[in-house]
Amino acid sequence: VSKPVYSRDTGGPIAFRFRSDNVAPVSAEILHALANANHGTAAPYGNDEWTALLQRRFSELFEREVDVFPVATGTAANALSVASIARPWGGIYCHELAHIHKTEGGATEAFTGGAKLVALPGRDCKLDPSALTEAVLRAERGARYAPQPDAVSITQASEHGTVYTLEEIAAIGKCARDAAIQVHMDGARFANSLVTLGCPPAEATWRRGVDILSFGATKNGGMAADAIVVFNRTLAEPLSYWLRRAGQTWSKMRFAAAQLIAYIEDDLYLRLASKANARAKRLGQGLAALPGVRLVAPVQANLVLAEMPEPAIELLVAAGVRFARYPGSVIRLVTHFDCTESEVDEFIGLARRSIASAAGDSEDEQ
Amino acid sequence: VSKPVYSRDTGGPIAFRFRSDNVAPVSAEILHALANANHGTAAPYGNDEWTALLQRRFSELFEREVDVFPVATGTAANALSVASIARPWGGIYCHELAHIHKTEGGATEAFTGGAKLVALPGRDCKLDPSALTEAVLRAERGARYAPQPDAVSITQASEHGTVYTLEEIAAIGKCARDAAIQVHMDGARFANSLVTLGCPPAEATWRRGVDILSFGATKNGGMAADAIVVFNRTLAEPLSYWLRRAGQTWSKMRFAAAQLIAYIEDDLYLRLASKANARAKRLGQGLAALPGVRLVAPVQANLVLAEMPEPAIELLVAAGVRFARYPGSVIRLVTHFDCTESEVDEFIGLARRSIASAAGDSEDEQ
Amino acid sequence: VSKPVYSRDTGGPIAFRFRSDNVAPVSAEILHALANANHGTAAPYGNDEWTALLQRRFSELFEREVDVFPVATGTAANALSVASIARPWGGIYCHELAHIHKTEGGATEAFTGGAKLVALPGRDCKLDPSALTEAVLRAERGARYAPQPDAVSITQASEHGTVYTLEEIAAIGKCARDAAIQVHMDGARFANSLVTLGCPPAEATWRRGVDILSFGATKNGGMAADAIVVFNRTLAEPLSYWLRRAGQTWSKMRFAAAQLIAYIEDDLYLRLASKANARAKRLGQGLAALPGVRLVAPVQANLVLAEMPEPAIELLVAAGVRFARYPGSVIRLVTHFDCTESEVDEFIGLARRSIASAAGDSEDEQ
Amino acid sequence: VSKPVYSRDTGGPIAFRFRSDNVAPVSAEILHALANANHGTAAPYGNDEWTALLQRRFSELFEREVDVFPVATGTAANALSVASIARPWGGIYCHELAHIHKTEGGATEAFTGGAKLVALPGRDCKLDPSALTEAVLRAERGARYAPQPDAVSITQASEHGTVYTLEEIAAIGKCARDAAIQVHMDGARFANSLVTLGCPPAEATWRRGVDILSFGATKNGGMAADAIVVFNRTLAEPLSYWLRRAGQTWSKMRFAAAQLIAYIEDDLYLRLASKANARAKRLGQGLAALPGVRLVAPVQANLVLAEMPEPAIELLVAAGVRFARYPGSVIRLVTHFDCTESEVDEFIGLARRSIASAAGDSEDEQ
Repeated sequence: VSKPVYSRDTGGPIAFRFRSDNVAPVSAEILHALANANHGTAAPYGNDEWTALLQRRFSELFEREVDVFPVATGTAANALSVASIARPWGGIYCHELAHIHKTEGGATEAFTGGAKLVALPGRDCKLDPSALTEAVLRAERGARYAPQPDAVSITQASEHGTVYTLEEIAAIGKCARDAAIQVHMDGARFANSLVTLGCPPAEATWRRGVDILSFGATKNGGMAADAIVVFNRTLAEPLSYWLRRAGQTWSKMRFAAAQLIAYIEDDLYLRLASKANARAKRLGQGLAALPGVRLVAPVQANLVLAEMPEPAIELLVAAGVRFARYPGSVIRLVTHFDCTESEVDEFIGLARRSIASAAGDSEDEQ
Repeated sequence: VSKPVYSRDTGGPIAFRFRSDNVAPVSAEILHALANANHGTAAPYGNDEWTALLQRRFSELFEREVDVFPVATGTAANALSVASIARPWGGIYCHELAHIHKTEGGATEAFTGGAKLVALPGRDCKLDPSALTEAVLRAERGARYAPQPDAVSITQASEHGTVYTLEEIAAIGKCARDAAIQVHMDGARFANSLVTLGCPPAEATWRRGVDILSFGATKNGGMAADAIVVFNRTLAEPLSYWLRRAGQTWSKMRFAAAQLIAYIEDDLYLRLASKANARAKRLGQGLAALPGVRLVAPVQANLVLAEMPEPAIELLVAAGVRFARYPGSVIRLVTHFDCTESEVDEFIGLARRSIASAAGDSEDEQ
Repeated sequence: VSKPVYSRDTGGPIAFRFRSDNVAPVSAEILHALANANHGTAAPYGNDEWTALLQRRFSELFEREVDVFPVATGTAANALSVASIARPWGGIYCHELAHIHKTEGGATEAFTGGAKLVALPGRDCKLDPSALTEAVLRAERGARYAPQPDAVSITQASEHGTVYTLEEIAAIGKCARDAAIQVHMDGARFANSLVTLGCPPAEATWRRGVDILSFGATKNGGMAADAIVVFNRTLAEPLSYWLRRAGQTWSKMRFAAAQLIAYIEDDLYLRLASKANARAKRLGQGLAALPGVRLVAPVQANLVLAEMPEPAIELLVAAGVRFARYPGSVIRLVTHFDCTESEVDEFIGLARRSIASAAGDSEDEQ
Repeated sequence: VSKPVYSRDTGGPIAFRFRSDNVAPVSAEILHALANANHGTAAPYGNDEWTALLQRRFSELFEREVDVFPVATGTAANALSVASIARPWGGIYCHELAHIHKTEGGATEAFTGGAKLVALPGRDCKLDPSALTEAVLRAERGARYAPQPDAVSITQASEHGTVYTLEEIAAIGKCARDAAIQVHMDGARFANSLVTLGCPPAEATWRRGVDILSFGATKNGGMAADAIVVFNRTLAEPLSYWLRRAGQTWSKMRFAAAQLIAYIEDDLYLRLASKANARAKRLGQGLAALPGVRLVAPVQANLVLAEMPEPAIELLVAAGVRFARYPGSVIRLVTHFDCTESEVDEFIGLARRSIASAAGDSEDEQ
């Protein structure tokens, strides 16, 4: 494993291919849409034809009137969605590994004026509806010293690549409705989850109680155009002020809108996500078959979390492979629409050799 | 003036061409750069080759090591620049018409935790160095109840399209240094000012005392890539945290970096701005020659502010022309790199007819 | 004027007597009330008998149900009152010399999350209803980049010691109602204004359109117990959360409540304010009669702002006298319930001698 | 247990005596000090003689120069202390049951601009130095998406009435120094802990690494005067601005200062706390001897947390007794300087009867 590792298909180093879905390029269709939007004059700040078309297209896609606001990043989508709901003394329930809690630099706290993320446990990185119910019951309603239940945020697909079933979303939606709180879905990998669920977007969101959605496109073939999709339309006004105040209202909005229109045109987003999911499945199966490897969670989207002998991980690192590492000898691998089957197979081979080599080393040490 | 008004050159309605420089498309070179960046794998969040190259290119451009952070909007650039300087109880001096004070939805207040913009008067929309000196002297240093001087922010070119001379920038820089406060430059139209000054970027910024610069590219041919350029490098660390926390750290940063690299390559930014400035000059001269029209400020960049008979303004509006209006029968017209001379001439003709028609109407009313 | 100046009545230095009404002690009745409240057990955080009685007493005083929240300072009362109304992107109209704008360390900006104080001019330090009307009309409703009208704040008595008439309050109240914004009254010197108006509290507040009142007691014989009085009761809930979050909910609330109950018992607050006002009137008349002295505003409460020859002011300062100074050779003197007539007369004498001495000095210099 | 329960000693209902130490009156000495301070004129906002004396007295008490800032509540003391340390993207380590995390309405998040409280487990409600060390090691230094270690906050005595030993404080101080973070001590019950430790204040604070202390007086005989004591004097300047901005700078500061001076005069604070601690010890021993009762934590200050049969708790509640309840059939009882031994004994008797009665009921139900 000491010689350089390249992907034959791309000519680039395979070492970086599974680091994140953010490492991928932009899909050809979306790049094309940008060029197509680059003609003539367009009103700024979302008062243009492309943005108007975006509203219509997303309303069709979600089978109801929605408000769509393109933003620069998933962090902005999440934090501003929640800020449109929660009061400064509000409590926002989320899984203890949720991106908004662990990996967004406190953006949610910043935009809400210091509301509290109440982290809850849950199997396979999914918030357990019964844990939510219990937490809401435990909340001291009306106590001025305690965070007041305002929102619940779930990540779909989750940070471990698992997918909430429609029943699970509905259970969380019901719990929220009973508690008079609102549901935010962090859909940074929404398309990947939808492919797995095999249902229309409406079924996986507002029909199950979701009030506001961070609709991720960047990780799945976009350039820089995540969006906030608002189902509970009372949230749209505060949100629109927050967006401007946060420097998230593009002046040349048409280019964000054009990306998002192309993203859903002819189900492009599902086609791209299908590829990513298929590669993850292959990668997961391949790794699970190796000695000493255990998948941390079922592979339901485009992430693979695998427990692996620590010396084998070190060999992969030494070979220049990049990936997120978690406590307990766990590595995270992410596939995307531009990954090939042969890249996957090459990585599995590399992992096999690392494990064997590490095992050999260990034996030598004995 | 009741029949539709179109630009012969573009086939599009001239009515919208001078509304703002944000209505313009993206320059061909920048669109091309996006396509060129769309190959292979790139590390996310600015850890990629393009972003590394951006740091080098901007350091060359500014003739010193700088830190460059691409952001989604000029509002983000301004508010986060100032937030990297000012304490919550700080005072930020600016012109009373400054964009950060009047037109950014309170973004600066939001990101600083409620610091105070101290608005000062000044001729031609430029902060007067002596007014700044006086204001700083008047500030009650150490008084816990009063805003403490932290920063001064100037807009170059200004909101009225005037340009600070090198001497004026130096005077503000000296005042700031004497007062131990820092200088932010809102360079939403930095290229336009540089064309007028005819000097290298370094001369118009850090060599005259500027600590941090909002480097605008979007209004001058970019798609969505303004940047913060940090000269006072102690600001880079707090700024980098704020950027992530504000949802302004692109995951696919290479596409922002690629835009900015192309923007300065072979002085593209100056060539684009030169065109816009030349059109504004022609427009200003043409309008100033009309009866009853007075330019509010000298045309030194790509903005024209003209006082015009109110009935003529109403006729332009009725004809569907879009522009910002200010108190005192003043309209603002903005040119950009994609405006043609014939569009300018057509608009002047339209204004001439509106004025004549309004004068006729007035006579009729008598 | 070089020898020490003492008040014969108090044995203390007269030099400090007119610096502010905060320099005064606590009235005997209020100190007595504290001792009376110091028996047995009382529930914390306002769930006690004294606080319940406070609600009843203030509801009687104001001739309607009100919510009363004791706070530590006038700054807390003002900032939290406004924070219970204004959104982060809200605009709060106030006089350009308003305490919340000039002298509270940005507390209002801090607690509102960076809302904008829109400062307006007005004669005698009073907000002009027509200026307010005009400003509200000028506000760009719905524009995401501009502060949205949320509140107006007036100071009664004003920072210059003038008093809004009932007609003026009503005019501001009507303008606010028409504009769908809410009225905050900074009543740091509410009792002093009421003495001048000669009407019941209800007439000077909610019956004229005031939604929420900072009810000052500390400057007029209290120890540390200003209060927020809520007329628009929808504000009470957000306010109560903000109070706890701001560390303004006393654990031993009974002692704040006891002060406020005693303060209004048998019109103590009016009797104390009457004394302060009478002293200010005497002081104003005495000073106005001196050569070269001009009152800046009519004396309608317990403040005297006097323009005076600069050398005479310097002599007063050299003699150790303490007072606030404003641009244009203006000094501010404040009386309080504990000032005596002879102290007033002594100060007038001192001022007379300073002016004479300064005039002599000036002549010497010629 | 259905008949009313009164304390023979006080004539008041014993039912409320152990609810909290906030239910207690003010000690005679402190009330006396307030009256003594009520003479003549005093400069406002802490520029007076009493406040100057407070600085000297506390500097003597702590055997070094300190800065002392009186505040209205313990919540203000805690949140503003931490806000003087932590950056908006900072992490503040604390026990998972810490008051700042659970019971202060998000004040710390509000004043820090949304910094993150990182809650850690620990036996007997005390932060475990090794858990802290581990958490700091786990922190992703420099990662813009993760909270950056800034502070650790410990509560002394803890929320369960346990006391950190000098060794434990030193271990936390060392860990903090190694990690370049600062130590805040929430000393709402500082005097109670000091009585248990039997050492001078300096030994239990800055000599063991504490940078800033919330010095509680209100729960132990004060009226409304907690204080922030600053050892790391670089924190004093930002803190002083925050205090004014938070509406926590008393205008008549002398009365807060006078309370605090009296509080430490002749070790009053230790004498008051000794009484409270002794009562708690007696109460704990008495309850522990009852059938079915288990103390949750050793009684080391003035709190008793006791697990008790649920039906017995219900009987106490039905009898009108007030106390905090925690999950797992745990009740919290708090003693204070004004509790008598007979009140303690009476409560133990009441608890004994409740338990017996509940047991009888249970048997009846079988």
